[in-house]
Amino acid sequence: MIIAQKNGRNTIGAPDKLFGVSAKAKERIAELGSDKVIDSTIGVLLDDNGQLVVLDSVMKSIRALQPADYAAYAPILGLPQYREAVKKAVFLDDLPQDCFIESCYTPGGTGALRNAVSAYTKPGDQILVSSWHWNPYNLIAAELGRSVRTYTMFDEAGRLNIASFEEELAAILREQEETVIILNTPAHNPTGYTMTDEDWNGVLTVLGRYTDKKIAIVVDIAYLDFSGDAKEYRAFLKKLVGLPENLLPLIAFSASKGYTMYGMRCGALLCMAPTEAIAREFIDVMSVECRASWSNGNRAAMTALANIIQDDELFAEVRAEREAYLQVLNHRSAIFMEEAHRIGLSTCPFDSGFFITVPCDQPDEIGEKLQESNLFAVALGKGIRISAASNTDDQLRRIPAILKAAME
Amino acid sequence: MIIAQKNGRNTIGAPDKLFGVSAKAKERIAELGSDKVIDSTIGVLLDDNGQLVVLDSVMKSIRALQPADYAAYAPILGLPQYREAVKKAVFLDDLPQDCFIESCYTPGGTGALRNAVSAYTKPGDQILVSSWHWNPYNLIAAELGRSVRTYTMFDEAGRLNIASFEEELAAILREQEETVIILNTPAHNPTGYTMTDEDWNGVLTVLGRYTDKKIAIVVDIAYLDFSGDAKEYRAFLKKLVGLPENLLPLIAFSASKGYTMYGMRCGALLCMAPTEAIAREFIDVMSVECRASWSNGNRAAMTALANIIQDDELFAEVRAEREAYLQVLNHRSAIFMEEAHRIGLSTCPFDSGFFITVPCDQPDEIGEKLQESNLFAVALGKGIRISAASNTDDQLRRIPAILKAAME
Repeated sequence: MIIAQKNGRNTIGAPDKLFGVSAKAKERIAELGSDKVIDSTIGVLLDDNGQLVVLDSVMKSIRALQPADYAAYAPILGLPQYREAVKKAVFLDDLPQDCFIESCYTPGGTGALRNAVSAYTKPGDQILVSSWHWNPYNLIAAELGRSVRTYTMFDEAGRLNIASFEEELAAILREQEETVIILNTPAHNPTGYTMTDEDWNGVLTVLGRYTDKKIAIVVDIAYLDFSGDAKEYRAFLKKLVGLPENLLPLIAFSASKGYTMYGMRCGALLCMAPTEAIAREFIDVMSVECRASWSNGNRAAMTALANIIQDDELFAEVRAEREAYLQVLNHRSAIFMEEAHRIGLSTCPFDSGFFITVPCDQPDEIGEKLQESNLFAVALGKGIRISAASNTDDQLRRIPAILKAAME
Repeated sequence: MIIAQKNGRNTIGAPDKLFGVSAKAKERIAELGSDKVIDSTIGVLLDDNGQLVVLDSVMKSIRALQPADYAAYAPILGLPQYREAVKKAVFLDDLPQDCFIESCYTPGGTGALRNAVSAYTKPGDQILVSSWHWNPYNLIAAELGRSVRTYTMFDEAGRLNIASFEEELAAILREQEETVIILNTPAHNPTGYTMTDEDWNGVLTVLGRYTDKKIAIVVDIAYLDFSGDAKEYRAFLKKLVGLPENLLPLIAFSASKGYTMYGMRCGALLCMAPTEAIAREFIDVMSVECRASWSNGNRAAMTALANIIQDDELFAEVRAEREAYLQVLNHRSAIFMEEAHRIGLSTCPFDSGFFITVPCDQPDEIGEKLQESNLFAVALGKGIRISAASNTDDQLRRIPAILKAAME
């Protein structure tokens, strides 16, 4: 007997691919030893000994928490000091003055995306994402009775495919009065692509043609703090100020990667509203959504993050500590890219971040073949995702040849 | 310009009554001093000095957490040891053997209710709750495109009104093939009522008449650990074993009150499935729902709770410490009830828990009148809710007369 309702959920009971490959990697490591096996399935930053990187400076803030910081309820939208702190975490010292920025706590970036889709689309609507994308976007949409439509992410030149973006958006807006667009940049998961200045101009030009449709532009910045120069990689935020009233920029912030607080579920949704009324509406709607989904948030996590960001010295310490790991990460991916280039292995256009993707036909078959060479990586979409975040320089130097051999 | 979609949300921008009254209480206290003002709006347990009660034994477990307990992701459904621990937290040593119990982490009881409604009803469906109820039930339903239907909670004798329950359930099931029923017991919020053995028999007899409808019976046990004798107040759980396949008992567990972990968002949804297949389906559906709503949960909270429950000595310490506060709480409400009885003030049928409700016409007007006497309490439904959890013996002795005067 079936008791549950399927509703929009199309993947109930489907095997978890990532978990499956990851479990196999662990088995093989137990059998052959970790020096003989490369596990490239892990989506968190590991040090060269395979240990989870935890920023000491962040732990300092956590260790300073008092009993009430754990025990007491936070307000529905989050602690006031947290709601301010996330603005600084996103914009640093360049808080835009010409728009109305509001924020609310969400459990990680997932909660932020969930709230954005629920607030700014209707059941039955399509939302727009790129062809290469983080798979949970589909689940978030489906759980809310929405669905995902994709545009081809890259053009021949390896830049964002504005023509495809325009075409698919037009298809959606022929049927709907509103939509949500998710742009995962910088350091896109799974490709590592970062939208360029030109890409942004192209996207905003297309959006500017719709004067009577309501479009929420959600920038998923999960990997922002592990992309590149903090100021340079935030330059795009200025482009989101001063848009017409029907275009609403939203920022999905997550402390998971940048503050190594993965397990604390510390995220936020921010609006960059062109009018005060739209910012007010954002707060009013988020109050109901948060209340109805998780009520209030992890107060300890909020306090720990707020205390970091309010303390110039500690915030500088976090940034310095993170910068060192960013160098480690960028060095790893540079080694992979150099070696891939040397042996003629094509990758998706890569800039920075945790992952690199190698496109291929029949990724599932290739993924299994890699396992014969003791390389474990996740097949997704039309490619294989490699995790620079969790492999060593030496492993990343060896992976391209294994991939190339499997594909030939 | 309105950008957000209203969808099912009927309360966007509505003033937060609780917050409003609570803010006024704080103002008055600042003006007159805390000895002159009674703030009965607070829904957490305070000691007699007005400080939040935090169990030392729980803090011991939190203080023992390691960096990775905070930093690492938990699995989507929760840490395996947490998923076991919540079974013991709910059933203690009486884990039923004749049903299939599964569980998943949720952010508090709210997340558990959200998941239950999303899984076991369809958009457009009505769910059934009692006339006196925790207001967020409405928001949870509305956010998911469902709505709440109520039955009259009490009959003339002050017992659960089975006739009304039967009538309203029938009205729902004339239109739908499935529904969710939320039963908030023991120590119901806001009345403090606990369903009796007879009430349960009545409810289950009614449900037993539906052999072709799918009904999820969600027991919201948020206040279980602050009701009464642990074993006695869990006796009802046995009645949920051995039901027909179309009736699925679910338990919404929260560590907020019982473990004073309000701000950690530590809850769970458990199923007591009559078949293994239905338990499997529960897990499969929850995997998608959790992934799409908050992804994974607060690992530190899960670890802290699991470590308590796996450690017999520490678990006994938590229970002993809690028992002392339960006595304080029960003493407070006994004083209120005694005084109310003495002066002839009627209350809703009360058994135990954080709250007592005094029914009245025009509760909003009465609520404002109380403020003239420096008593601040929340008007809800057709009554005034008094918080035994946050007021002292002395305050609770004085409140009935103030209420009676305002109502005359």
